[in-house]
Amino acid sequence: MDRRSFLKKSALGGSAAAAASTLAAPLYAQGNRTLTMVTSVPDGFAIFDDAAQLAADYITEMTDGQVTIQKNPAGSLVGAFEVFDAVSAGQADLYHSADYYFLNQHPGFAFFTAVPFGMTGQEMANWYYQRGGHELHNELASLFNLKSFLAGNTAMQPGGWFNREITSASDLQGLRFRMPGQGGQVLSRLGASVQNIPGGEIYQALSSGAIEGAEWIGPYADERLGFQEITKIYYTAGFHEPGSALTIGMNLDVFNSLTAAQQKIVEVACAAVHQHNLSLSLAENGAALQRLQDQGVQAKQFPDDVWDAFGRASAEVREENMSDELYAKIANSYFESMNESASWADIADNEYVRQRNRVNASM
Amino acid sequence: MDRRSFLKKSALGGSAAAAASTLAAPLYAQGNRTLTMVTSVPDGFAIFDDAAQLAADYITEMTDGQVTIQKNPAGSLVGAFEVFDAVSAGQADLYHSADYYFLNQHPGFAFFTAVPFGMTGQEMANWYYQRGGHELHNELASLFNLKSFLAGNTAMQPGGWFNREITSASDLQGLRFRMPGQGGQVLSRLGASVQNIPGGEIYQALSSGAIEGAEWIGPYADERLGFQEITKIYYTAGFHEPGSALTIGMNLDVFNSLTAAQQKIVEVACAAVHQHNLSLSLAENGAALQRLQDQGVQAKQFPDDVWDAFGRASAEVREENMSDELYAKIANSYFESMNESASWADIADNEYVRQRNRVNASM
Repeated sequence: MDRRSFLKKSALGGSAAAAASTLAAPLYAQGNRTLTMVTSVPDGFAIFDDAAQLAADYITEMTDGQVTIQKNPAGSLVGAFEVFDAVSAGQADLYHSADYYFLNQHPGFAFFTAVPFGMTGQEMANWYYQRGGHELHNELASLFNLKSFLAGNTAMQPGGWFNREITSASDLQGLRFRMPGQGGQVLSRLGASVQNIPGGEIYQALSSGAIEGAEWIGPYADERLGFQEITKIYYTAGFHEPGSALTIGMNLDVFNSLTAAQQKIVEVACAAVHQHNLSLSLAENGAALQRLQDQGVQAKQFPDDVWDAFGRASAEVREENMSDELYAKIANSYFESMNESASWADIADNEYVRQRNRVNASM
Repeated sequence: MDRRSFLKKSALGGSAAAAASTLAAPLYAQGNRTLTMVTSVPDGFAIFDDAAQLAADYITEMTDGQVTIQKNPAGSLVGAFEVFDAVSAGQADLYHSADYYFLNQHPGFAFFTAVPFGMTGQEMANWYYQRGGHELHNELASLFNLKSFLAGNTAMQPGGWFNREITSASDLQGLRFRMPGQGGQVLSRLGASVQNIPGGEIYQALSSGAIEGAEWIGPYADERLGFQEITKIYYTAGFHEPGSALTIGMNLDVFNSLTAAQQKIVEVACAAVHQHNLSLSLAENGAALQRLQDQGVQAKQFPDDVWDAFGRASAEVREENMSDELYAKIANSYFESMNESASWADIADNEYVRQRNRVNASM
């Protein structure tokens, strides 16, 4: 793959530059440029690629093509999990991915996707946009020459697809299961044999028997991958990713080369994509689950004592990296914000939903 | 007030137009224009004006000033509740307000703010962006020569400030209370004497005794208005506005005069503001409630039988306008989406939050 030569593309011809200087907004009067986006999923993957495509479209349309985002799916330029290094090194301009794929770069990236017993999608927005989350994301990202933005959210990810019912934590012993991030570390502690596999390769691994179970995103996205053809046991609530954010990481030099208006367009586009993607999952999952059930899928919940085991192991995993100063700074900010907004929600928005359910059921 | 002469402002001089034609993106090479925004609250009002200001800033910054939004607070050009007519008639370019202030124009506008026992902020996003809500908004708005966008959300609005404890529905008899929209109609059915008063005038009405109680937005916004100086009884959950959207309505001719890129900027800016404003409320309300409690405010919940009374009266009010075809079309779309996404949330995101609360409490 060639190193991107984006600066050349954005250079103005002399006559155009002279003409631009007579206009009210000369910063817009530059030539068009194309930025190369690399992603971690194949084109057309529901929710995940929807977010990448929407972000690309928004930026392209709002800049009237002056910054055109060209999306390259996993494996076309670089592999699904190689996008971070490629953009950090300037071999591509930006990635759209999930930052917890890059825990080997820094464990703090976990908090910018999801951590076990962590934030829902809405709580993530509360922290990221209002309580310093975005600033911490960039403090971390800048160590890798990146500028980062949330740009999608899958909502809570279900417990996933199993080949047997989970009646106690001992049923997890030896289970070959696909789960990335801290969630996967938790399952490992509980005795499972955990693998991280890119989204585009899960179906093959599951159908070949290489793994016995997997979580991906949720009914709407999972249905498209066809897991229901292989197994019928589906746990709808999960402990591991209660509101997984997707992320754009842009090469910092590329970001700094954009005009102020273009930088603002990237920022606002990503924020709108976070909300649209979250609402896409929450709007589509119910109907998708119904279709899955029509194909024989059984929707289940883990029993309380399995949740208790998840909780104990999650607390241990969460503490593992607290000796790293930046990890601890992010973790403390994250949980402080979560606890604060959760305590309000419990006596406000959530109390309303409880009463709405109760009153509607009685009418 | 002068009729806006925006078209004149956006006209290009001949030489600039000729120069622009040599550039890659000639649509951007127009002169700057200023659009007049009118709002329904004073400058600086927390949450509500925060949303108006953020939308104005985003549009101005993303267009690099080519579309500069000049915000005019309630009462400066037109009164708080006159913004709709002013923009519809072309006397101002856009308003930022809450559409349920305009039920006398059409009762269907209720659904684009909030209705009793209706959607939370997140459910609103699910419907609006993924289930046809925005299209219905514009079908309605176009009858008044407007193009509409959600541009803010207060989250669930608490039951509000009372001068006495509400132990049964009979305590609402004769209560002089400020509440707009269908919520106010519900309280009227339950015997209260309901008034709609603009946000900037509530404190005065409450402190003079003209009203005995009021709801406004939530702890963070209410605290700034100083209601805690007058009464100490605060109900944190409310039935009437479970996720009040704020709205931008732009004169349709003005919107159509924007370039495609500028139109996309307006759309995406408003979507980002919806999410930021919702997260602002949810992030700030907990700490604000604590400060209010430190000043002696008592946080309470309505008893179940009061919720039941709210529920019965809300169902009656909701049905009142179903003979209007467009109202019924909006209502059916709204509740279908709400029920679908709520049923998924109940076994997914909400089950997760229940388990998180339970597990965290036991550790």
